[in-house]
Amino acid sequence: MAVKVLGILGSPRPFGGSGQLLRCALEAAQREGAETELLSVYDGEIKPCQGCIQDEEPHCRFPCIFEDYGKELLIKINQADVLLIGTPVYWYAPSGLLKNLIDRMTSLENMVAYGEPSYMEGKVVGVITVGADAGLTLAGGYLLTVLNAMGAIVPPWAHAYSRRADQALLDDRAVMDAINVGLLATGLAARLKGLPGRLSYLDDQALLREIREKIRQQKEAFEKEHGTAKVGKPGA
Amino acid sequence: MAVKVLGILGSPRPFGGSGQLLRCALEAAQREGAETELLSVYDGEIKPCQGCIQDEEPHCRFPCIFEDYGKELLIKINQADVLLIGTPVYWYAPSGLLKNLIDRMTSLENMVAYGEPSYMEGKVVGVITVGADAGLTLAGGYLLTVLNAMGAIVPPWAHAYSRRADQALLDDRAVMDAINVGLLATGLAARLKGLPGRLSYLDDQALLREIREKIRQQKEAFEKEHGTAKVGKPGA
Amino acid sequence: MAVKVLGILGSPRPFGGSGQLLRCALEAAQREGAETELLSVYDGEIKPCQGCIQDEEPHCRFPCIFEDYGKELLIKINQADVLLIGTPVYWYAPSGLLKNLIDRMTSLENMVAYGEPSYMEGKVVGVITVGADAGLTLAGGYLLTVLNAMGAIVPPWAHAYSRRADQALLDDRAVMDAINVGLLATGLAARLKGLPGRLSYLDDQALLREIREKIRQQKEAFEKEHGTAKVGKPGA
Amino acid sequence: MAVKVLGILGSPRPFGGSGQLLRCALEAAQREGAETELLSVYDGEIKPCQGCIQDEEPHCRFPCIFEDYGKELLIKINQADVLLIGTPVYWYAPSGLLKNLIDRMTSLENMVAYGEPSYMEGKVVGVITVGADAGLTLAGGYLLTVLNAMGAIVPPWAHAYSRRADQALLDDRAVMDAINVGLLATGLAARLKGLPGRLSYLDDQALLREIREKIRQQKEAFEKEHGTAKVGKPGA
Repeated sequence: MAVKVLGILGSPRPFGGSGQLLRCALEAAQREGAETELLSVYDGEIKPCQGCIQDEEPHCRFPCIFEDYGKELLIKINQADVLLIGTPVYWYAPSGLLKNLIDRMTSLENMVAYGEPSYMEGKVVGVITVGADAGLTLAGGYLLTVLNAMGAIVPPWAHAYSRRADQALLDDRAVMDAINVGLLATGLAARLKGLPGRLSYLDDQALLREIREKIRQQKEAFEKEHGTAKVGKPGA
Repeated sequence: MAVKVLGILGSPRPFGGSGQLLRCALEAAQREGAETELLSVYDGEIKPCQGCIQDEEPHCRFPCIFEDYGKELLIKINQADVLLIGTPVYWYAPSGLLKNLIDRMTSLENMVAYGEPSYMEGKVVGVITVGADAGLTLAGGYLLTVLNAMGAIVPPWAHAYSRRADQALLDDRAVMDAINVGLLATGLAARLKGLPGRLSYLDDQALLREIREKIRQQKEAFEKEHGTAKVGKPGA
Repeated sequence: MAVKVLGILGSPRPFGGSGQLLRCALEAAQREGAETELLSVYDGEIKPCQGCIQDEEPHCRFPCIFEDYGKELLIKINQADVLLIGTPVYWYAPSGLLKNLIDRMTSLENMVAYGEPSYMEGKVVGVITVGADAGLTLAGGYLLTVLNAMGAIVPPWAHAYSRRADQALLDDRAVMDAINVGLLATGLAARLKGLPGRLSYLDDQALLREIREKIRQQKEAFEKEHGTAKVGKPGA
Repeated sequence: MAVKVLGILGSPRPFGGSGQLLRCALEAAQREGAETELLSVYDGEIKPCQGCIQDEEPHCRFPCIFEDYGKELLIKINQADVLLIGTPVYWYAPSGLLKNLIDRMTSLENMVAYGEPSYMEGKVVGVITVGADAGLTLAGGYLLTVLNAMGAIVPPWAHAYSRRADQALLDDRAVMDAINVGLLATGLAARLKGLPGRLSYLDDQALLREIREKIRQQKEAFEKEHGTAKVGKPGA
């Protein structure tokens, strides 16, 4: 039974820096035997959390109260063994729209209030942050801290980052790190299923070049069709 | 010329804990001679940031590209001398909707790319965070760090917090701290205008009781009209 | 081959709040079959890091350049499968002396500069933070972020905290959480050795009471001998 | 009465990157009319905090219980109008030795427990962080958050940083930012004394070159005498 890896992209640009590195991670996961899928928070509406957990009769439970695209994402997250989040760094933190999703993930975690385990418990997670300057560690550390507090497991070297913005694919260390986020998250999830799985950092320059070239081609094909214009704007 | 203080509430509940304490801060500011106004991010649509700052021809400038409620908030922020932000703590951070606004505030700061000062430069700021458990310091420190990196000035004791959720108004220390956030932000802004202004923490239990009672009555009146139901839901 | 669990205490008080909860975690680990040991950073000298990693000829490698108590701790860390860190929260962060040790742990991680894996890679970690007020999440999230960036694995629910200071042992949720830090870190390390191991949160009030009583007795015995005076002051 | 600016360096290297930028800030402060002084935490012993604030009879008060170099630093801090802290980034945070000093600064803040204002209240602060990679925002934001929670005021743009390690002096933006940390902290402190003072970012390339050259010469002279060897090691 293959490891299911879900990538969630927090960027308005499908092939911006965070999209590039997240795709590298997913590609690596796939080569490790995982089934992968990539979804973007910008591809639909994610209504903001209403804080139901503080209501007099608390009714914060999976899959949240809203019938929107956010619900689809929550259901996908619930089905995955591994969750990889990639985000641009806006003011040292995930994008606001991604934060909406994180807020709504309370409905997964808050199942503990109904006598069930957190639906995030035991999932393996990794994160990718890309910006043009500062705040990458703050954003990445924040995400790992939150995901662990929902019950998730963090594999070694679970945060890859680049400050080269939309040139992240040319940032050798970042690409190698992103590949490892994919490999090691998949590897740890496999181990927890009783399968073999990698748990140590892989420094393989040939693999780096191969995956980079593949993602570069995907980016080129995408831009041939769509230009560099952003797509998937909510409301567009 | 009175100090203009704008309160921005990041909560779906007008009179939840963060709303309670933010109102205490604004009331204190008003007694210090400020003109005050309170707006909630939940009272209209705030489209998520599109990251225009990374476009080939960057066009991130005040007041942002969107014609929505977010634009109104950005204009109000630009006109204020003091910005006080109150937010519930969702996963150790501001609510997602408030984060959308912060992301969009890039358009105020990024005026530096057009040869102007940041429109946030020299504004005085304070923050209030309320939750039921942990992450208050992380959320408040995050906000102050970001606002300062936009050019804002942080007065003494600029972060008030309570972990008593919708009972925050009963949290003596938190209420006194919130009052001081209002007093000291106003005081510092006044000083910078050449007027007298308070810069040291005030521990005045009579004032605390007086302001608390006033906000309690407002809350009661609000709930008589609206129930405890949340209002101002986007899309509602 | 039993899982080896090392507890490092960052407090001047052997039985202060962080010491209490860390002992609960270790006791739980032991019941899960682990060999456990507890060491305090306050029991000897830990010279501050000299930043050798930036020297012209970098010579930052395990076990660091100093012959001091810090070296002993680094060697113990290197031998452990699981590292549990407990610290009081001093200004939203680990104690300065514990930070010295973390700085010196660079020598474990920096083995990557010598063609070896990080000596922290694959170790399983958990953290406990105790304070009287705020900053618990900031301190705990910081530690997990750093340890993961050294290559460590973070099990579910890896951070237990209490704001009840030296009354932490009476904080039911915190004690149950600390027990789980011990159980789940041991459980994950066992799994990675091919042994059975627990990975889901255990809510067992009888176990809580039993472990609490045991630690309470240890505390009482300690205080009978030493008073509540702090011991193991460096230089004392 | 001139503004008194104290620089505290958290690095073992007097002219490493954080030392370089901190000196730029101090030089700028001096040109703004301030009296400046620079001290390093590595020039003497700073015993770790013993957490007296939690003792049964709390006795945490200025200037702390220890007779050591740390006490001298605390007294100097108390006398300053402006405190500028420069630190290398060790694991996304200030150096452990600097953290010891921060822990001990509790004795300044805790005067509130004795019916006095915090001795940090109203001081103006700025921070400089330098590293070779990540965590600069986390470290700088942490310091500003803590200092504000002690009662300090944060001027606009109060955090300068560089990831160019010991080449920070060649990092144009970082040097200009560091100069502004000095200018604006001094400017705000002057304003609060009723004197004129700068509060807006200065982008002056000629000043940048002039100050850089001056610090470069100081560095050269220092290295002629001492080599690049670190000096002022505790215990050396």
